Amino acid sequence: MRDSVESGVVKFIGIVRTSNGKESRVEIYSSFCDGLMGLEAFSHLIILYWFHERDTEECRRTLRVVPRKHEGAPEIGVFGSRSPSRPNPIGLCVVRLLRREGCTLMVEGLDAIEGSPIIDIKPYLPRADLVPSAKAPEWTLHGPPT
Amino acid sequence: MRDSVESGVVKFIGIVRTSNGKESRVEIYSSFCDGLMGLEAFSHLIILYWFHERDTEECRRTLRVVPRKHEGAPEIGVFGSRSPSRPNPIGLCVVRLLRREGCTLMVEGLDAIEGSPIIDIKPYLPRADLVPSAKAPEWTLHGPPT
Repeated sequence: MRDSVESGVVKFIGIVRTSNGKESRVEIYSSFCDGLMGLEAFSHLIILYWFHERDTEECRRTLRVVPRKHEGAPEIGVFGSRSPSRPNPIGLCVVRLLRREGCTLMVEGLDAIEGSPIIDIKPYLPRADLVPSAKAPEWTLHGPPT
Repeated sequence: MRDSVESGVVKFIGIVRTSNGKESRVEIYSSFCDGLMGLEAFSHLIILYWFHERDTEECRRTLRVVPRKHEGAPEIGVFGSRSPSRPNPIGLCVVRLLRREGCTLMVEGLDAIEGSPIIDIKPYLPRADLVPSAKAPEWTLHGPPT
């Protein structure tokens, strides 16, 4: 049985203003800026963003993918991949926080393209997020990290 | 300057049917079930879910929190916390995949309450998500992991 409420609304809280593949400038809109207070206490963050170029009916129907950037990858369910084409166009990336300049975060390692809306930022908590025993199939070791 | 599109829609792809704090039963709706194919290749997953009980205007205005479950935590910006009251009520949890039974995932370590809608599942990729050098403030070591 499917429950009655079937969707929610995400507000865009900021944007990836520039990204050169290594260092990225993430601007948080002024109305959400107060939420960044004290963020410098964390070395790493988890950025949730919107794959805005994949927010189409067709992309959101994707249930199987072949991760072509990863040599040797088999066809797999989309939830076993980081494909930007997926039922909800949400991207997730662990980044290193280089510095904060007011409402702007300079981060390292963000895989989002310029113009991507930001939907959430969370602290990377080693106790919860660092799993030394985690295992992934061999094809995930080829190509880009995500 | 704020860009023109300001929000997106997330579809609920499943639900946390039962959770006893250790083992949780995550049911994915049949129309998205094909996206689970091959998920067993990963030992751990990242579950994105909806804090449905906090999807109110008031909770979504939260910009500063005091993480009371964590002894010694200071007041901090909401993006430096895992608080369920936040501008977008999105929860994130790294879990261990115990087994898949058709459209149902049995997982360990999920911090979501029963009835929480699921919005995305991603594979935990050690190359991208495991950061041995990550540092977090001392108060994050007290209380629950998130």
